[in-house]
Amino acid sequence: METVFINGLGLIGATMARIIKASNPTVTILATDFNQENLDYMVDAGVVTTVTDFTTGASQADLIILATPVSAIRESLNDLATMALKPGVLVTDVGSSKESILAAAQPLMAAGVHFLGGHPMAGSHLTGSANGRLDLLANHSFFLINGNATPTQIKAYQDLLGAGQLHFSELTASQHDQLVSATSHLPHAVAFALANAILPKIKAMDIDPGIPAGGLLDTTRIAKADPDMWTAIFTSERADLLEQIDGFQDQLDRLRTAIANEDQASIHTQVQAANQARRELEQPR
Amino acid sequence: METVFINGLGLIGATMARIIKASNPTVTILATDFNQENLDYMVDAGVVTTVTDFTTGASQADLIILATPVSAIRESLNDLATMALKPGVLVTDVGSSKESILAAAQPLMAAGVHFLGGHPMAGSHLTGSANGRLDLLANHSFFLINGNATPTQIKAYQDLLGAGQLHFSELTASQHDQLVSATSHLPHAVAFALANAILPKIKAMDIDPGIPAGGLLDTTRIAKADPDMWTAIFTSERADLLEQIDGFQDQLDRLRTAIANEDQASIHTQVQAANQARRELEQPR
Repeated sequence: METVFINGLGLIGATMARIIKASNPTVTILATDFNQENLDYMVDAGVVTTVTDFTTGASQADLIILATPVSAIRESLNDLATMALKPGVLVTDVGSSKESILAAAQPLMAAGVHFLGGHPMAGSHLTGSANGRLDLLANHSFFLINGNATPTQIKAYQDLLGAGQLHFSELTASQHDQLVSATSHLPHAVAFALANAILPKIKAMDIDPGIPAGGLLDTTRIAKADPDMWTAIFTSERADLLEQIDGFQDQLDRLRTAIANEDQASIHTQVQAANQARRELEQPR
Repeated sequence: METVFINGLGLIGATMARIIKASNPTVTILATDFNQENLDYMVDAGVVTTVTDFTTGASQADLIILATPVSAIRESLNDLATMALKPGVLVTDVGSSKESILAAAQPLMAAGVHFLGGHPMAGSHLTGSANGRLDLLANHSFFLINGNATPTQIKAYQDLLGAGQLHFSELTASQHDQLVSATSHLPHAVAFALANAILPKIKAMDIDPGIPAGGLLDTTRIAKADPDMWTAIFTSERADLLEQIDGFQDQLDRLRTAIANEDQASIHTQVQAANQARRELEQPR
C-alpha cells in the first residue's frame, strides 16, 4: 500500500490522510475534493502528495479510500466497477450506511476487486480539512465490515492506520447498521428534535433565560452536526432509524404516561432503569 | 444574616454551606439532615458550626435555607408557618418547582414571614455532602423567584452567596417553571427514555458494540441523575412537563415523517434549523 488515493478531504478524509502519513511517512497520498481549499490545505500541510482527478488517482492506487457522503460513495463504487484499477487494489470507505454501501459494492466485487467497508465512530460538528486531526479517532471504535478483502489486506489496512490508535471491531453490515442506528442515528434525531422544540419555547417567553445549563447543552450538542451529512444518512438509513425512533417514542410515552398519572412508583422504576442503563452504556467493553 | 440554618446537606445544601462560609467566615451555620454521614462530613470540614434539629435551627436563624427535595420543602414551609421564628428572618429554598413552592409558602407569608424562592441551575449526578463544592454553581444561573422578601433582604442574600460566583436572574414562578421545564425537565425525560431505549437494543444484538461514541454519551449523560430527586420533580411539575414532552414529540414526529417519506428537503430544513437553534441555545446572554 505505497500509493493511497483518498476521494474527499473533509474532516474524516483529512484525518485518515494524517493517520496514514504518520503511520508510513514514505507513502504517496493522492487526493481529490470538490473544495479547492481542502486540497490546498492538505498539500501545504505536507500530508497530501499530489492532487489528482478521480480516474487518475483511482487507477494509480494500491488503496482507495472513499471519504465522501454516503450517496457519493455509492456512485464512486459504481464508477470504480467499470474502471481499470491496479491488480490487488483494496477499495474501502468511511461511510455510515454499511448495507447500502456493501450492496453498491457488489458490481465492483463481481469485477474481482477487493472491498472492505469501514466506519470510524467519531467526528465533530467541525468540518473540512483544517479540522482533521491525527488523534480525532483515537480510542474510538472503527468498524470494519468486510466485503471480499483478504485477511492480509485487512491486516495491511489496519497497520496503515496504526498511528490513529483506533479500536477496530468487525461486524456484519446488518449488525453495524442496527448498532449505529441505535447508538448514533437515534441520538442525533432526538437531539435535532430537542433543539427545535426548546429554542422556540425560550424565545416565546421573552425573558432572560440565564446561562444555559450543562445538561441542556450536552443533550443537544450533536444537533450542531452537519446538515448535509445528516440528510444523507437519514435518507439512506431509513428502515433501521424509523424502528429506533419508534422504540424511543414508546419509552418516552411510557414515561409520559407515568408522569400524567402521577404514578411515582413507575416514574422511579423508569428513571432508576435509565440511570443503570446509562452507566452500562459507558462501560468500556 | 449571622446565623444560617440549612435543612438538608445534600449536594446543593452542602455547596450552599460552603459558599456562605467562604463569603462570610464568621457566620454560624446550623444544619440538619436525615443522613448522619452528611452532618459529620460538613462539621469535620469546618463548614457547619452545629448540628441541630429542625425546630431549634429554624428558631435561631436569620436565614433559613430549605435544601431538601421539593415535597419536603413544601412540608417544611407548612411547618414554619406555625413556628415562632426570629423577627426579620428570611426563608428561602433551592427547589426546582417554583409555582408549587410559592403556593406552599402562602401561609408562611400570610404569617408575616419573608420568603424568597431560589433555584441554582447546576448540579451533578453525584450526591451528598462529600460532592458539594464551592465552585459547583459558579457561572451558572441562580434563579430568584420572590415571594415577599424586601430588596434589602434579597441583596443581603446575594451578598452572602458572593463567593459562589453565581449568575442571578429574577423571574416569576410561572416563567421559571416554564423555562426550567423546557430547558431541564424535558432534556432529562428525553435522556431517561433514550437510555432506556438504546441499552436493550445493544444487548439484544449480542455483539461487541465497541467503544461508546461521544454523542451517545453526551446525549444520555443526565440520565445518571438521581432517581429520587427526579421522581419528585416529575411528580410536582406535571402540567408544564407534559406540554413540553408533547411539543418535543411533535418535533420528532415531524422529523420521522420527513425520513419516512424520504423528503430530503424537509430533513435538511429541520436539521439546519436544529443546528442553528443549538448554536443560539449556547450563546451567553
